[in-house]
Parts: sequence; C-alpha cells; structure tokens
Amino acid sequence: MQNTIQSGNATHAVTAKLSDRLLAGDLRSLARAISLIEDDAPAARGLLSACFPHTGKALRLGITGAPGAGKSTLVDQIARAFREQQHRVGILAVDPTSPFSGGAILGDRIRMERHHADTGVYARSMATRGAMGGLARAAVDAAMLIEAAGHDRILIETVGVGQDEIDIVRLADITIVVLVPGMGDDVQSIKAGILEIADIFVVNKADREGADRVEKELKAMQSFASSHGTWVAPVVRTVASQGQGIEGLVGAIDDFTAWLSRDDHLRERREQQWRQRLTEMVRGELLHGLHAHVLKPEELAEHARRITARQEDPFATTAQMVEAITGGSRK
Amino acid sequence: MQNTIQSGNATHAVTAKLSDRLLAGDLRSLARAISLIEDDAPAARGLLSACFPHTGKALRLGITGAPGAGKSTLVDQIARAFREQQHRVGILAVDPTSPFSGGAILGDRIRMERHHADTGVYARSMATRGAMGGLARAAVDAAMLIEAAGHDRILIETVGVGQDEIDIVRLADITIVVLVPGMGDDVQSIKAGILEIADIFVVNKADREGADRVEKELKAMQSFASSHGTWVAPVVRTVASQGQGIEGLVGAIDDFTAWLSRDDHLRERREQQWRQRLTEMVRGELLHGLHAHVLKPEELAEHARRITARQEDPFATTAQMVEAITGGSRK
Repeated sequence: MQNTIQSGNATHAVTAKLSDRLLAGDLRSLARAISLIEDDAPAARGLLSACFPHTGKALRLGITGAPGAGKSTLVDQIARAFREQQHRVGILAVDPTSPFSGGAILGDRIRMERHHADTGVYARSMATRGAMGGLARAAVDAAMLIEAAGHDRILIETVGVGQDEIDIVRLADITIVVLVPGMGDDVQSIKAGILEIADIFVVNKADREGADRVEKELKAMQSFASSHGTWVAPVVRTVASQGQGIEGLVGAIDDFTAWLSRDDHLRERREQQWRQRLTEMVRGELLHGLHAHVLKPEELAEHARRITARQEDPFATTAQMVEAITGGSRK
Repeated sequence: MQNTIQSGNATHAVTAKLSDRLLAGDLRSLARAISLIEDDAPAARGLLSACFPHTGKALRLGITGAPGAGKSTLVDQIARAFREQQHRVGILAVDPTSPFSGGAILGDRIRMERHHADTGVYARSMATRGAMGGLARAAVDAAMLIEAAGHDRILIETVGVGQDEIDIVRLADITIVVLVPGMGDDVQSIKAGILEIADIFVVNKADREGADRVEKELKAMQSFASSHGTWVAPVVRTVASQGQGIEGLVGAIDDFTAWLSRDDHLRERREQQWRQRLTEMVRGELLHGLHAHVLKPEELAEHARRITARQEDPFATTAQMVEAITGGSRK
C-alpha cells in the first residue's frame, strides 16, 4: 500500500510540472490531469494536493434529471449566461451508466465548438468509475482541477437520476434538478432522494403540455419535504432549446448563491461534504490496499474452498488478513 | 484494533462456556449468542469460531417478497412441514427497515407459541444492522449459530425486497421469492435483482384473482432471465393461511435440494458465498477499525472545518489516517 501513498521522485517531478501548467490555466494540462484521475494514477494524488490550495472559491453546480430532460442544452445555456457575467466556466458531463473512459473526446469537441472555441469554457466528459471511491469522487476531484485551472463556475451534469447521480450532485454547492412535462408520472418518476436535495427545480421544455401539472406536483411535494433551513427550492420554467427562461434560472442561481453566502450556509454545506469525502477517501484507500495486497482472486477462491470444506476458520482468516493490512504494529 | 481481534482471557472463558451450552442445544444460550452478534460484541467472533466446525450441513432457505405477501404464514407452514419430516427447524425473521434491536421479543414469543412450544422449532427476529458488515452478515452468522445448536433447516425470512433483503437471501442455499396477485404491477413491482436470484417462486394467496397472470408474467420473465445452470425456478401456488399448496412447495424445495447436491452445485454456491463473505468480513473489520480509531466524529468535523478553510490538505490527511490504521510497518 505504501507505494500508493508516497509517489516516487520521478512521478513527483512530472506532477509538479503538470500542476504548474494547469495552475497557469493550460487546458491541455488540465485534460491530462483529469485523465490521471480517471485512470486512478498514482500521480493523481500529488496533483490534487498541489491544486487544492487554489480551490474553494468557485461555485460548483450539480445538474441532474431524467435522460431526455434536455440537461445538456440547459447546461450550455447556463454556461453562456455565466460567460456574459464574465465568469470562466467548466462543464463536467458525468455518465455513471457508461463504461466509456478517457473523456468521450468526440462529444467534448462538439460541445466545445458549440461555445465557439471560447477559451473561457472548458468541457469534459467522465464515465470511468475510478478504482478508489467511484465516480462521485472522481467527478468532484476533476471539478477541483477545473477550478484550479482558473474556472470559477463549474457545471457538473449527470445523465440520469440514480444513486450515483445523487452521490455526485450531493458534492456540489448547488443542486439543480431538471424535469420535463409528459414523462410518465413526472414527479413520481424521479427518485425520492433527488427531490430532497434539490436547491432549484427546472421544468424544461415548459412549452409542452403538462408544465403546470409538474410545477403543481413539485410544490405539493415540497410541502411534505424537509426544507433546507430557510431556503425553499424555487421552480423555474425554461425552454432551453430556445433560450427561454434562462435569465430566470440564472436569477434563481444568483438568489441561492446569495443565500449560501449568508449565515455560513456554504461553509456548513462544504464542511458536511468534506466529512463525507474524507471518510470515503480513507475508506477507498483502505479497500484499494485490501484488493491490491490481500484479496487476490485466486487466494480468495482457495480460502473459500477450504472454508466451505470446513478445513479453515473464516474468522481466523479474516483476522490474519486484517493483520496483514494493518501491519500488526498497533497495540 | 488489536483488542477487537484478540479477545481477553475472561471473555474467552465466557465464550467457551456459552458455545459449549449452545452446541449442546441449549436455546437460552443460543438466544444469548445471537444477541452478542446483534450487539457486535467482541465475544461474538470467538463464539462463531467455536461453532463454525459444527456447521455446513444444514439447509438454509431465504424467503423474501413484498410486505403483505404472507411470508410469515408461509414460513410457519414450511416449518411445520419440515417438522413432520423430523427436521429441527430454525426461523430467523430479519427486518432491515426496523431500528428495533434485541430480538423483537414479543413477536418471537407469539411465533414460538404458534409452534406449540415445540422445542424442535427455534424462532428469532433480528433488526439491528451490526456495526461490521451489516444485517446480511449478522443474519448469516446467526443462522450459523442456529445450525450449531442442532437445527438442520434454517428459514431466513425478510420483510421486503430491497437491496438489504437481496443481500441476505443471496447468502442462503435456496432463495424463495413470494409474490401475490393483485399487488399493482405484480411482477414488475418486484426489484429486478430479486427475480434473478430466485430458485423457487411462490404465488401465495393464489385463490385471489390474478394468480394466473402473475404466473404467466413470471414465466415470460424467466424466458429472458439467465437460468441457474440446469435449474429453472418453478412457480408454486399456495394459500398459506389455509395450508394449501405447502406440500407442493416442500416438494419443490426437495427437488431443488436434490439438484443442489448434484454436480457440486451446493459446494459451488457456498464457495461463491464465502468468497463474498470473506471479502465483506475483512472490509467490515477494516472499516470498524477506521471508525473506532481514526474517524471519530469530532475529529472528522475538525478536519472538515480546516479543509474547508484550506488550512489542511485532505489528501495528506487521508494518507495520515490510512497510515494510522495500517500501522506504517508495511513497505
């Protein structure tokens, strides 16, 4: 496990160079750095450490909602509005359902072109679920790098509304949940957990029939749900494909941002996130060591065989394995 | 962590006495032993180690299905049929949704009385989700103790069909999934994962309208699902409250038991389970050490506070915590 904790000197030098360029705003270095996170490379930790002090000021927005809700178009519109406010924007599209790795190059290129090669917008896809801590951690780490490269508005977009997506948007500062009229049971079709974490609801494709009903259902549901302290999630209607309602949405984002900055709401939310992340990080490292050093498939199979045959005590085996990992030096 | 691995001498003596009495078939000792597992007591491991060599011969049946499907009545009927076959029966009712701990005494007493204080039937509820490895592990450990106390048919009944329930019945030798007609979308309402692990389907309350449809839907679904080698899960109809169809169900259980004993199916299944359990056990011990020794809530909160304020590097903190757990002796 040791070698996953301390990087060698060579790795260290490469990391230092890469992080220097990344911190200077070089987007190629940023892309390479995010790939290191995706690949769960040993160098990733050093990079993140180097970038960490330069982060914490950007606003990270998580955007989730059912597939087909028009999230990508909406995200592009929000990005454009942020650009008009002179923000530098990062877009991270996260797909927990796809085995695709390496940054979905084509999609990112199309997206970048949509922003007319505006160097104030950086777009990137992530699909891989890194070995340690999964996609949510990889996404939030990538968002950190994007911020370190000089972007102060990070849009993290997910494809669906499953548990992975909830885990991802939970690590953002603002959670935007996108619904559309006419998708089956509308509000009911959204996983329960997602409604509770929404800071802003968007009813997109609001020119379709049923927008009123979705809004009504959301408000009815909110009257049951626990509120986030003094904030009640507004319902904003948009037709993202025509740019309609984006102003109102950005207004809602600004309102929530103002609320976040009052009474330490943002600090509290981030501290809560770090409590969770830190736990996940330590857990991830431990399990990484577990699988790398102790639970080799063939050995595990042999233990299972002997245990099933009652030739070996599984409780003694467990203790030995834990001993092997913890090194036996603790008393 | 050391003290959670090696029990002291005093604990050891108590454990030895308790396991001796348990192995002699004393039900009070069995009840106390299961409570130790529920409480995740240090003595539990020694007990399990002592009982382990005396296990592996009982047949463990996992029974799951939506609440209201009549599982308890069905389980009682199966227990009665097993008693007629001269088996000694253990019933473990597991409720992952209930925070109730300590064995739901009243419910167990009612259940025991239903079996006319038959000492060949031992019934016990479990609700607590032990600190290490959760309820599924606690349930399968308890089943082991029940077997060690001399029961050769263990019925493990869950309340619902969520992920916890799937994890529990996955650790049994036979998985019985109970459905009833007229519960909404019937088959569709059952979590996808549960259909795949069913060895036997029971359509209970089969005198209700819609039993045909449930059976038809199940069979249609089976044609898509992956089969368990040469076994195709039969669909058995019962009206458990009137004792109808129990004979057929027990026949299906006997058929499956015969199939299990052929071509090493049972051994393969159990080896697969042990591979999974061993991984879970080591993981559980590690995380137990993590929470007991490193991630104390107040320290975690302080780290999160300092990290959010950018006064501390979370990656360095993670490495330190892992170091504290692994003891730093590994190179």
